[in-house]
Amino acid sequence: MDENWLPTLQTATPEEGYALAVKLSRMAIKFMQPDAEVRSAMRLMYEYDSEALIAASQTVAEHFSTIAAANNYWK
Amino acid sequence: MDENWLPTLQTATPEEGYALAVKLSRMAIKFMQPDAEVRSAMRLMYEYDSEALIAASQTVAEHFSTIAAANNYWK
Amino acid sequence: MDENWLPTLQTATPEEGYALAVKLSRMAIKFMQPDAEVRSAMRLMYEYDSEALIAASQTVAEHFSTIAAANNYWK
Amino acid sequence: MDENWLPTLQTATPEEGYALAVKLSRMAIKFMQPDAEVRSAMRLMYEYDSEALIAASQTVAEHFSTIAAANNYWK
Amino acid sequence: MDENWLPTLQTATPEEGYALAVKLSRMAIKFMQPDAEVRSAMRLMYEYDSEALIAASQTVAEHFSTIAAANNYWK
Amino acid sequence: MDENWLPTLQTATPEEGYALAVKLSRMAIKFMQPDAEVRSAMRLMYEYDSEALIAASQTVAEHFSTIAAANNYWK
Repeated sequence: MDENWLPTLQTATPEEGYALAVKLSRMAIKFMQPDAEVRSAMRLMYEYDSEALIAASQTVAEHFSTIAAANNYWK
Repeated sequence: MDENWLPTLQTATPEEGYALAVKLSRMAIKFMQPDAEVRSAMRLMYEYDSEALIAASQTVAEHFSTIAAANNYWK
Repeated sequence: MDENWLPTLQTATPEEGYALAVKLSRMAIKFMQPDAEVRSAMRLMYEYDSEALIAASQTVAEHFSTIAAANNYWK
Repeated sequence: MDENWLPTLQTATPEEGYALAVKLSRMAIKFMQPDAEVRSAMRLMYEYDSEALIAASQTVAEHFSTIAAANNYWK
Repeated sequence: MDENWLPTLQTATPEEGYALAVKLSRMAIKFMQPDAEVRSAMRLMYEYDSEALIAASQTVAEHFSTIAAANNYWK
Repeated sequence: MDENWLPTLQTATPEEGYALAVKLSRMAIKFMQPDAEVRSAMRLMYEYDSEALIAASQTVAEHFSTIAAANNYWK
């Protein structure tokens, strides 16, 4: 794993903040399942599973809340 | 995906804030399942699944909390 | 949907705040399943499903947290 | 439902705050399933279901977070 | 239940704060299932159920967030 | 369990903060299932279960939110 994969929580725009939230939510899976092949196989399955996608969207929402606060809501 | 799909978290009214929260909760699904046809097929299923709708409402609630804070609760 | 269904997050009392949290949690279902008949049929089912009711109570708790903060905890 | 069931979020002690969080988590079930008999029957089931109890404990945790903030953490 | 089971949210160290978060997450189960024997039987089951343990870890995370804020993050 | 396993929430970088969030989310499992062998057996299973990994990523997100606030978002 790249030592410097998360240099900052600051982003220029809310879009970048949201993309970072998606990245952070995926990172936990990478920490817990280091094998890239296993992760891709699992992703193929959950991308067609609405329950899994909704659960993943909750993780993104929690991270987006953190990043939005970190950027003072891009005011 | 439109580069500028989320220009700001500021909204004029709580209603607009809530609509933005619904949009943000759907966006994560778009990030994780880019195929529009697959998404519409899945939506047809989960729209009739109360458990999935309740789970999705939790994502909306988390995003609404972020947007409400971003707008100082429209005081 | 009434354009002005959420004019403010301010409520006079914590009870009204809680009732608004229940309304907000239901609104997400309305956004995602616009058909009132489908929603009533689903409600008939989940009202007798403790797992669904508990999941819905989590959504209410998240919205209540937002509304309580919006009202400075009715101090 | 008693009009004045939630006069305040202020409590004298953290214990009272926690008890209020349990009450708030149950209240959502009451709002969504007004029939007391149905609720008691459901409670009999979920009280022996660890998954349901754990899910309910998440709702309590969210409400406790709100009440603790409302009481400035009883400092 | 001991009247004074939660005298304060203040802890000397983050470790104590985390232990308190685990205690708070268990307390909700105690409130909802007062029978100690039933709780021990359930615990025997969920201690070997990764899904249940992960769900319980979410409750601990929510309580830890509250306790960390209560202790100004032990700065 | 090492008495001093969590000396501080302060980390030098967001990466370290995220790693600490993963550690905190695992710690709850350790508190609830002290037997290391049982935990490794369970981990072997949930590492190949996308639903479990997504649920665990929610716990990480909640802890990361706490740690990010504790570090003033590494501004």
